[in-house]
Amino acid sequence: MAKQQVRIGMIGYKFMGKAHSHAYRDLPFYFNTQVEPVMQAIVGRDEAGVKAAADRMGWHSYETDWRRLIERDDIDLIDIGVTNHLHAEIAIAAAEAGKHVICEKPLAMNVEEAGRMLEAVNKAGVVHMVCHNYRFVPAIRFAKQLIDSGKLGKIYHFRSRYLQDWIMDPQFPLVWRLRKEVCGSGTHGDLMAHSIDLARYLVGEMSEVVGMMDTFIKRRPLGEMSGGLHAEVSGEQIGEVDVDDAVAFMSRFKNGAFGVFEATRFGKGNRNGNSFEINGSKGSVRWNMENMNQLQLYVEDDEKGEQGFRNISCTEDIHPYAGAYWPAGHIIGYEHTFINIVHELMNGIAENKSPSPNFTDGYRNQVILDAVENSAKSKSWITLPKF
Amino acid sequence: MAKQQVRIGMIGYKFMGKAHSHAYRDLPFYFNTQVEPVMQAIVGRDEAGVKAAADRMGWHSYETDWRRLIERDDIDLIDIGVTNHLHAEIAIAAAEAGKHVICEKPLAMNVEEAGRMLEAVNKAGVVHMVCHNYRFVPAIRFAKQLIDSGKLGKIYHFRSRYLQDWIMDPQFPLVWRLRKEVCGSGTHGDLMAHSIDLARYLVGEMSEVVGMMDTFIKRRPLGEMSGGLHAEVSGEQIGEVDVDDAVAFMSRFKNGAFGVFEATRFGKGNRNGNSFEINGSKGSVRWNMENMNQLQLYVEDDEKGEQGFRNISCTEDIHPYAGAYWPAGHIIGYEHTFINIVHELMNGIAENKSPSPNFTDGYRNQVILDAVENSAKSKSWITLPKF
Amino acid sequence: MAKQQVRIGMIGYKFMGKAHSHAYRDLPFYFNTQVEPVMQAIVGRDEAGVKAAADRMGWHSYETDWRRLIERDDIDLIDIGVTNHLHAEIAIAAAEAGKHVICEKPLAMNVEEAGRMLEAVNKAGVVHMVCHNYRFVPAIRFAKQLIDSGKLGKIYHFRSRYLQDWIMDPQFPLVWRLRKEVCGSGTHGDLMAHSIDLARYLVGEMSEVVGMMDTFIKRRPLGEMSGGLHAEVSGEQIGEVDVDDAVAFMSRFKNGAFGVFEATRFGKGNRNGNSFEINGSKGSVRWNMENMNQLQLYVEDDEKGEQGFRNISCTEDIHPYAGAYWPAGHIIGYEHTFINIVHELMNGIAENKSPSPNFTDGYRNQVILDAVENSAKSKSWITLPKF
Amino acid sequence: MAKQQVRIGMIGYKFMGKAHSHAYRDLPFYFNTQVEPVMQAIVGRDEAGVKAAADRMGWHSYETDWRRLIERDDIDLIDIGVTNHLHAEIAIAAAEAGKHVICEKPLAMNVEEAGRMLEAVNKAGVVHMVCHNYRFVPAIRFAKQLIDSGKLGKIYHFRSRYLQDWIMDPQFPLVWRLRKEVCGSGTHGDLMAHSIDLARYLVGEMSEVVGMMDTFIKRRPLGEMSGGLHAEVSGEQIGEVDVDDAVAFMSRFKNGAFGVFEATRFGKGNRNGNSFEINGSKGSVRWNMENMNQLQLYVEDDEKGEQGFRNISCTEDIHPYAGAYWPAGHIIGYEHTFINIVHELMNGIAENKSPSPNFTDGYRNQVILDAVENSAKSKSWITLPKF
Repeated sequence: MAKQQVRIGMIGYKFMGKAHSHAYRDLPFYFNTQVEPVMQAIVGRDEAGVKAAADRMGWHSYETDWRRLIERDDIDLIDIGVTNHLHAEIAIAAAEAGKHVICEKPLAMNVEEAGRMLEAVNKAGVVHMVCHNYRFVPAIRFAKQLIDSGKLGKIYHFRSRYLQDWIMDPQFPLVWRLRKEVCGSGTHGDLMAHSIDLARYLVGEMSEVVGMMDTFIKRRPLGEMSGGLHAEVSGEQIGEVDVDDAVAFMSRFKNGAFGVFEATRFGKGNRNGNSFEINGSKGSVRWNMENMNQLQLYVEDDEKGEQGFRNISCTEDIHPYAGAYWPAGHIIGYEHTFINIVHELMNGIAENKSPSPNFTDGYRNQVILDAVENSAKSKSWITLPKF
Repeated sequence: MAKQQVRIGMIGYKFMGKAHSHAYRDLPFYFNTQVEPVMQAIVGRDEAGVKAAADRMGWHSYETDWRRLIERDDIDLIDIGVTNHLHAEIAIAAAEAGKHVICEKPLAMNVEEAGRMLEAVNKAGVVHMVCHNYRFVPAIRFAKQLIDSGKLGKIYHFRSRYLQDWIMDPQFPLVWRLRKEVCGSGTHGDLMAHSIDLARYLVGEMSEVVGMMDTFIKRRPLGEMSGGLHAEVSGEQIGEVDVDDAVAFMSRFKNGAFGVFEATRFGKGNRNGNSFEINGSKGSVRWNMENMNQLQLYVEDDEKGEQGFRNISCTEDIHPYAGAYWPAGHIIGYEHTFINIVHELMNGIAENKSPSPNFTDGYRNQVILDAVENSAKSKSWITLPKF
Repeated sequence: MAKQQVRIGMIGYKFMGKAHSHAYRDLPFYFNTQVEPVMQAIVGRDEAGVKAAADRMGWHSYETDWRRLIERDDIDLIDIGVTNHLHAEIAIAAAEAGKHVICEKPLAMNVEEAGRMLEAVNKAGVVHMVCHNYRFVPAIRFAKQLIDSGKLGKIYHFRSRYLQDWIMDPQFPLVWRLRKEVCGSGTHGDLMAHSIDLARYLVGEMSEVVGMMDTFIKRRPLGEMSGGLHAEVSGEQIGEVDVDDAVAFMSRFKNGAFGVFEATRFGKGNRNGNSFEINGSKGSVRWNMENMNQLQLYVEDDEKGEQGFRNISCTEDIHPYAGAYWPAGHIIGYEHTFINIVHELMNGIAENKSPSPNFTDGYRNQVILDAVENSAKSKSWITLPKF
Repeated sequence: MAKQQVRIGMIGYKFMGKAHSHAYRDLPFYFNTQVEPVMQAIVGRDEAGVKAAADRMGWHSYETDWRRLIERDDIDLIDIGVTNHLHAEIAIAAAEAGKHVICEKPLAMNVEEAGRMLEAVNKAGVVHMVCHNYRFVPAIRFAKQLIDSGKLGKIYHFRSRYLQDWIMDPQFPLVWRLRKEVCGSGTHGDLMAHSIDLARYLVGEMSEVVGMMDTFIKRRPLGEMSGGLHAEVSGEQIGEVDVDDAVAFMSRFKNGAFGVFEATRFGKGNRNGNSFEINGSKGSVRWNMENMNQLQLYVEDDEKGEQGFRNISCTEDIHPYAGAYWPAGHIIGYEHTFINIVHELMNGIAENKSPSPNFTDGYRNQVILDAVENSAKSKSWITLPKF
């Protein structure tokens, strides 16, 4: 008997569009999902660009207006991989059209938008996820299992850093990720949103935060809106950077643990330095994206004198997702986090459930993002709502 | 204008069959090759198994006898991913049928076979490669560029270790990789062949070798022939292990450099510990599969006091192959080495050239493998032929 | 001509007493200081204990009351290595008696005390230092040189962690370091004071802070007051822990850089995990006590593709202090930081100057410690005075 | 009651003379030995130099001829820290004079000398040691305990590397360590002797070896004989280098384990890169001088999925020697290995026993050194005598 098909409409074909497209294409190779993903259509405003992307990446068709995708009957799932300022409008339209939705992070421009998005998907009863892909690193998922099993005991500390350095040149142009009207926030929504998601996933909800943010380079040459790393400067015009270059915050988790978070795009030498450490009463874990297959684990009940952080290669069959890939020690990479997440999404659609992280997670993440930003402005601690 | 198609016939659907299949499937997503790979047919002896594999991996058809593939007119390239004892027969038949050939390593069971294979492909004028995939790790390819540019100066030392531990349990069964009639040698052809290829690639040819080999566990329960890590023991029967568990050798390179090599499947705690270090008169490099995206580079002309091994994440556009994948710091994994190699293969077919490593490399590798084995038996240094 | 002698009176013979005593004893072996340290007398309340310590460590005499030391004419320098609550009284008495003073960190119980101490040494015109020994790690001192030379450019970020785990067992007793009346604060004055000193040394003064502190284990069995790691519980009595187990704070440096600091004694698996990272516009450094001889340095102007954190072994003659010890690669340890600091102290006495860090540094450090503590209580940002 | 005194006569005041002198000076501070070391006299040919060294290092007297030391009645122990070609003559004279002897490694210029030295000390009944200081690194001594306890199971592999780079500049002069008549061999006796000692200590005796050696820079400017790293070239004269720059060998241990050894002074970027790995049937250890306080330990019986090399800081009271120094995590350095060895020596003298490594170890080490050298010359395997 043929599997139920899930016909996907992908919006966006740049960095995230590529990552998601690859995941759908590769998923059936590695995982036997309950439903079959079909790469139905991809959307981009530039027809030549999106057509070429569709051909190369394996999409059956393309559109130049995302609204067309919503209207099409042959689309079951909308995947939102475009600039943040479109997330809410697209997601709500998709939900209202009865389509499942997966949305890139951060979920929205602000809490108000996120709230409407959550309401929309709940009302429509569609399956929804937000694409916090780091949860799907085998080493991190394994850390979660260890924490849930009590291996680390009571958690006292979560500390994370997410350091990049790609905009440090003052001549780097004012790309969309540096314009508030398009991205909502800078490093905060781009990087810190990931760290917040990992904190919530691994340790739980927080009760209060105090934050600081700043923009180190306040004026930059204007560049092409869509550019990423390779954006080119166009002309002599200068624009204001109205989002944060760096953000830090401290928090209390509901269980009393300390949270210390820092994210920056001014961390010279750190290309994608996402890392965290968790200390519990019985053990600790450390993780670093640079060596993403490895989990450092300290277990208190190792024999006296033989205690030390173990360097575990989370590539064995026993580790989450790892069995689908290669023998132990044959590492996977960044792109596999997306394969793992769409694997969960497909099974969620089959079971009509919204796997975590879903819009509820995205909403709560946005609550924290906004609270940190407000705290930075008001220079005060902010109490978070009880979820 | 449509691209020329290269219709592939894949023989084998287990570990290497999976790795190669994935590479063909993923190749067009990342690289714009001059020809278009078509996943035409896959071969396995077990019909149910190969049919399921074909479906999951995206092959258009399947066969249960590799000879059928040779006969088929709709196959342009034969990819040999089966046990070593079949390499020669298949490769020669494929060449004689005018088909291009890529073969898993080690190329053959011995030099005699390798010689006949090389002769066959040369005579037929087909394109040929041997799948030493580690050459296609961006960090290693970048090391090659540095060496070729003179950055490291005159090379004095190449030292390598390839350590695994998957057969250390004496109850682990006598799988095909432990039977000489099927695999030719044990750790030697499986792991050391890779190290020899990297040495030849990075430093050049060797002039003499002295080796040692041993089998630590000499009798094992019989198991299913085909099994890898998850092989199950069948019954109470015991068989002799007639291949090496561990091998080490020393060599002289033609330029006078020392080579020190060790490979073992008894390196407890090392899942796939492939690593090397090269010292030159002006600099050094170190690489380790565990963190395969990183190259450690020491450059003598750094300022005094500021010298140290640099930890380079070879994930930037400037690094070989890396630009096709993800932004800097977003690492790739084991499988990408196969995508990179079939990328070279497709372009080789388009240009009717056999990219390195090809059967000439495979043959020379086999000459060294045999020399080391003979040296271990005769307990003497063996002079290698001049290539 | 014989060197001028500096006759030392050491107060305390436990952990810090041992570290300082060793430094004085070893100093002339490694450094040719301008004056000659003489190990004149050591003080401890327990006569048997201090007598044995004096014999073993090489002190010429001992006293059981520190006031006796102040009275003695044959003492030129008072070294204060006892519990924090005695620092002010001793230091002021020493200064008033015209003796030079070196005091363990934190300088005082609070700003008021620190102010009086600074006033006393200034008024008396004696030489004074506070023992922030980490400044004297060659790798850190070399980092300071790099920063001063502009190698890292404008500094954007200082982030530090100081993680220990020795009091995590709830049955660990209420030693003096857990009693506010004796130590002033917990982790804060013990560990964070070091991190603040490094921040001030390497990046400069801060303008404002916001902090959080907590005590995770609020009640502990009473133990011997003086105990460290090996303290034994005495009886069944329980006492309140009135100092912090963990502290974190964020700050702004005067130059605009972000400071993110965390210190805890609940960092399971971290025995003495003191580490920091600094990011500037042109480069970065990282340091970790675990491998204290190494400095990680990233230099932007390395060639494209060859950039990465260099692992520098700061054991070469060119590195601060390193030339006095062993050939490159032959590492030194914790105790050498004290040899280096008393080396500076002796030369300071010879030149009648107070080398950094001196009481001015200790005072400013205390201002920040108090501000963080007040901030944690008031849950607000606190502006620091301009120095 | 006063302790028995052991009056020491130290021969040599450069690198090793400094390391040994410091050890005697520091020993009583850290360890309560059964006898009391007295720094009686030090010897050097240059009177001004040795006098200054005696003053700085704390020796009571000095001599300019080692024979004077042998004659003196007030010397109980002769410590030989001079060039290798004097070891035998001094040690035999010392033994014949009834003095205990500790000698730097390698014990002798060749087996014949070593044999006479061993005979002499045995005949005289004096206490003897050879200064293989790496055995006294706490992490290595702890590894020994783990191996002896069966924690690693049956040992299959010992592999070691000792890499330095201080003579790579062709203009570096012909110092004594590059002259066969003075040092006996080059890298071999200097570095490989250490690796052989660790192999024998940790794994046991070997039964056969095959080696290779070479001199990469065969002619160098003449320099001052005594120079180390900072030797200066004197004049235009050129001399032949008649010792090895690099050496490698393979061996079989009596228990069947593989030994793979490499030592070089041409390992660019490695200042003192002494490292080894041992694989057993149940676990493995790794050690590296760069982070000498750490032992990497893999234990097979850790829970499935939680296995990995543990990074153990061997600075806890439970670790050998560590309790004498500092709290956990406060690392020690190179010089402490000498304190530990003279600690054993003093207790050996008190008990009239010769602790390992003694002249028997030095002799056996020399047997292996000579066998490797002969093997390199004859290009053949050499069977070692049974000890």
